[in-house]
Amino acid sequence: MLRVRQAATKTKGMAPRYLNGADSTARRTLLVPTRNFQTSTIRMSVTSKYYPNEPTKPLVKTESIPGPISKKEIAELDKVFDARPAYFVADYEKSLGNYIADVDGNLYLDLYAQIASIALGYNNPALIKAAQSQEMIRALVDRPALANFPSKDLTNSLSKLLKFAPKGQDHVWPALSGADANELAFKAAFMFRQSHERGYDTEFSKEENDSVMDNQAPGSPQLSVLSFRRAFHGRLFASGSSTNSKPLHKLDFPAFDWPHAEYPTYKFPLEENEAANRAEDDRCLKQVEDLIVTWKNPVAALIVEPIQSEGGDNHASKYFLQSLRDITLKHNVVYIIDEVQTGVGATGKFWCHEYADIQPPVDLVTFSKKFQSAGYFFHDPKFIPNKPYRQFNTWCGEPARLLIAGAIGDEIVNKGLLEQVQRVGKYLFGKLEQLQKQYPDKLQNLRGKDRGTFIAWDLPTGEQRDLLLKKLKLNGCNVGGCSTSSVRLRPSLTFEEKHADIFVDALTKSIKEL
Amino acid sequence: MLRVRQAATKTKGMAPRYLNGADSTARRTLLVPTRNFQTSTIRMSVTSKYYPNEPTKPLVKTESIPGPISKKEIAELDKVFDARPAYFVADYEKSLGNYIADVDGNLYLDLYAQIASIALGYNNPALIKAAQSQEMIRALVDRPALANFPSKDLTNSLSKLLKFAPKGQDHVWPALSGADANELAFKAAFMFRQSHERGYDTEFSKEENDSVMDNQAPGSPQLSVLSFRRAFHGRLFASGSSTNSKPLHKLDFPAFDWPHAEYPTYKFPLEENEAANRAEDDRCLKQVEDLIVTWKNPVAALIVEPIQSEGGDNHASKYFLQSLRDITLKHNVVYIIDEVQTGVGATGKFWCHEYADIQPPVDLVTFSKKFQSAGYFFHDPKFIPNKPYRQFNTWCGEPARLLIAGAIGDEIVNKGLLEQVQRVGKYLFGKLEQLQKQYPDKLQNLRGKDRGTFIAWDLPTGEQRDLLLKKLKLNGCNVGGCSTSSVRLRPSLTFEEKHADIFVDALTKSIKEL
Repeated sequence: MLRVRQAATKTKGMAPRYLNGADSTARRTLLVPTRNFQTSTIRMSVTSKYYPNEPTKPLVKTESIPGPISKKEIAELDKVFDARPAYFVADYEKSLGNYIADVDGNLYLDLYAQIASIALGYNNPALIKAAQSQEMIRALVDRPALANFPSKDLTNSLSKLLKFAPKGQDHVWPALSGADANELAFKAAFMFRQSHERGYDTEFSKEENDSVMDNQAPGSPQLSVLSFRRAFHGRLFASGSSTNSKPLHKLDFPAFDWPHAEYPTYKFPLEENEAANRAEDDRCLKQVEDLIVTWKNPVAALIVEPIQSEGGDNHASKYFLQSLRDITLKHNVVYIIDEVQTGVGATGKFWCHEYADIQPPVDLVTFSKKFQSAGYFFHDPKFIPNKPYRQFNTWCGEPARLLIAGAIGDEIVNKGLLEQVQRVGKYLFGKLEQLQKQYPDKLQNLRGKDRGTFIAWDLPTGEQRDLLLKKLKLNGCNVGGCSTSSVRLRPSLTFEEKHADIFVDALTKSIKEL
Repeated sequence: MLRVRQAATKTKGMAPRYLNGADSTARRTLLVPTRNFQTSTIRMSVTSKYYPNEPTKPLVKTESIPGPISKKEIAELDKVFDARPAYFVADYEKSLGNYIADVDGNLYLDLYAQIASIALGYNNPALIKAAQSQEMIRALVDRPALANFPSKDLTNSLSKLLKFAPKGQDHVWPALSGADANELAFKAAFMFRQSHERGYDTEFSKEENDSVMDNQAPGSPQLSVLSFRRAFHGRLFASGSSTNSKPLHKLDFPAFDWPHAEYPTYKFPLEENEAANRAEDDRCLKQVEDLIVTWKNPVAALIVEPIQSEGGDNHASKYFLQSLRDITLKHNVVYIIDEVQTGVGATGKFWCHEYADIQPPVDLVTFSKKFQSAGYFFHDPKFIPNKPYRQFNTWCGEPARLLIAGAIGDEIVNKGLLEQVQRVGKYLFGKLEQLQKQYPDKLQNLRGKDRGTFIAWDLPTGEQRDLLLKKLKLNGCNVGGCSTSSVRLRPSLTFEEKHADIFVDALTKSIKEL
């Protein structure tokens, strides 16, 4: 039997270490509530916690976005790169805090934050300090092959990251992106499973050594990873095989024959639909177990997002996530939580799956985006392969980004940003609930209550959603979509009530213009 | 029919742009040849081009490597990370130029350079300047989702990279590592093939859109990439399926059922074995064509290293690489050259495959390592997918590393480093040829003549090779192996004749101690 259960159980109940030393002095910012986007200038005197010089409101000068200068620069960029996805050309020097500037002089309140990847706003002073440090210069100019020639700073960098690790996790393996983190986690899971089948210290057989060089079993076993419909785990070939959000992400690429179970689709608000949603959980859980038992190839790992982000901000209940732990233990399947988009504070906890308090803790937790650095956390030492150089590559991570990640974690703790995100999230959600009453058609399935600022809703059609996002930009707010007709809010953790007010004003105006 | 031929032909004969403006004033460093490692201090007065304060010789203080302080720090690191591959803990602050320091106060002449990834030595002043620039601070603290919100600097960064692109290539797609670059190139190749089968502007069918969500054909077609025995293209799942150097890199991971042709094994010295080596080329080329015609799944792309590096420094002739172009054109296969280890100057040309002057130019060229930044170059605009967001991810590269790559390219051109590498390579190879006469058993199949400092040879056994590398460290030289019993030299481009002298002395001493 796999040793998941035993190893995982021993860390049960450990408290997340980053909570120690959290700064509780964060002051509630004074607010001057207003309704009208046009008159929001009266909030100019409110000082931002981080950014005393932050702009007080958006400013859109151009009639369309991208503006004429952006358009010209995008055309230049397009000569060497595929610039079609560009919304505008940003001027990061002029961006500050929650505001992003473009080369046309437009200034947007940013609720997209580089596809949910800016944790602390633009030009954050703590990150600038980290960027100017001697350690950073070394990391940039003398980039080590970290596992062969580790720098004397590496233990510190990794230990600092582990201060912020999810409950129960005390090791980390660095990666370069979310997709990379997930694929390295898959490798860890495959090795874990096979090493337990074979015996952790058992040598590879001649047949394994020979067959693997032809990409055949038993050396290259036909194992699978179970993921969910509408999941997004990246766009490389293995991560892409587990991704299931849109055909366009996958078309024309060979894929592994891996299964997808259905992810629950809840009725909102959650508190009014408990019975229906529990039945939905059970329906999906049955599929998970059936697929594990019947799939043509053994399921070595299950990967799941606590909130499917790219796939539409689909939430999973505590019951669902805990039941997956029970099922994976029962069937010796490695349990991987993908916190690439949900992690690092935006839901009001450092890691979203902490809301589910899964016991025993999951096996692997992947991260990237808001940590700027990527990788996976784990606790069972048996996830370290039986031999060195099996989980290995030249760089084994990016030391410059490890330094940034440490600075981000420290700021979140020292500035009490998790508490702020919870507080601002409640405030913003309340305002959106009110707006929903006014425009129920334009704010369907409002979701993310008590999940910080990780909020989303649906429009009736993709066209209306796209039009709303366009109007929002013209009204000064940079907002992203997800799935086919959803709006997702992903501000950085420095988003405050005053920003929520500006956004809700702009949203109201934009809805009226639809 | 694919349009590879037509599109590729039009760039025929273009000169590599980085040659324009190359600084021809590089002076030949004065040398005081000595034989004895112990007396090499007499070279102290020779000033290094880059590093006036560079140490003049290695210094090994500890009786074994890793030394006691390294050992202690590796044990600490091992508590949070898999530190078994660590040779020693480096002190990058004290490293300079061609010398790497460790925490025990040892100082090694570095001919491994972070697995061939340090282009210009440690703490290079030009890179420190780039690391301290305002653009770098922005890139580090405000990392954009490059394709959605490009910075105003991005066109410059990418255009600078393209100044150094291989002949004929005028577009670039950024990635994060060599494995990532290769997998993105595979994606480009798969889309290219399918878009030409279907018609570049033809919409996806309902059947494609449906089947891809189950990872099945036709949406996920069973296409393959042809690579070579002993190849190394990375360790993710698709790149890993094309990698064939060692079982340990691949064991326990599911793999795509992709074919491997044999890569030529030449007799050295090349000039004395022309007929036999040509016959070996033809034997392997026949396998390539046979596999393309007979493989169970269509071969969409062929990927090859101009010198297989991890796999043993196996060289490919101009004839072989040109014949692959002819075969790939004949069978509509995308031709990918992997320059991850061979690229960026170490062979004496910016890109190793330029020695083969392949006509028409290959389709995609991947890079990473010495450029610190990764990605692929291409020239055919049809490699840009028919729709945006097909080749896409959150970060689309690392802007901080793009800045470093630009600074590296400029230094190589401005300091005439390609000429220096050619000159020093000839000098070093001559010395090794002499040593080979003295110790023919310890320097078998010496290879890399006229390929700059990209030099390798074999020992009779893996044990002897490992022992030699150990002795070399104790004698002050950090050197790496490849394949099972080969030594590979991968100094940075700042390696000079005086360093070659020190190395040859240390090698002679180490061989005597075997």
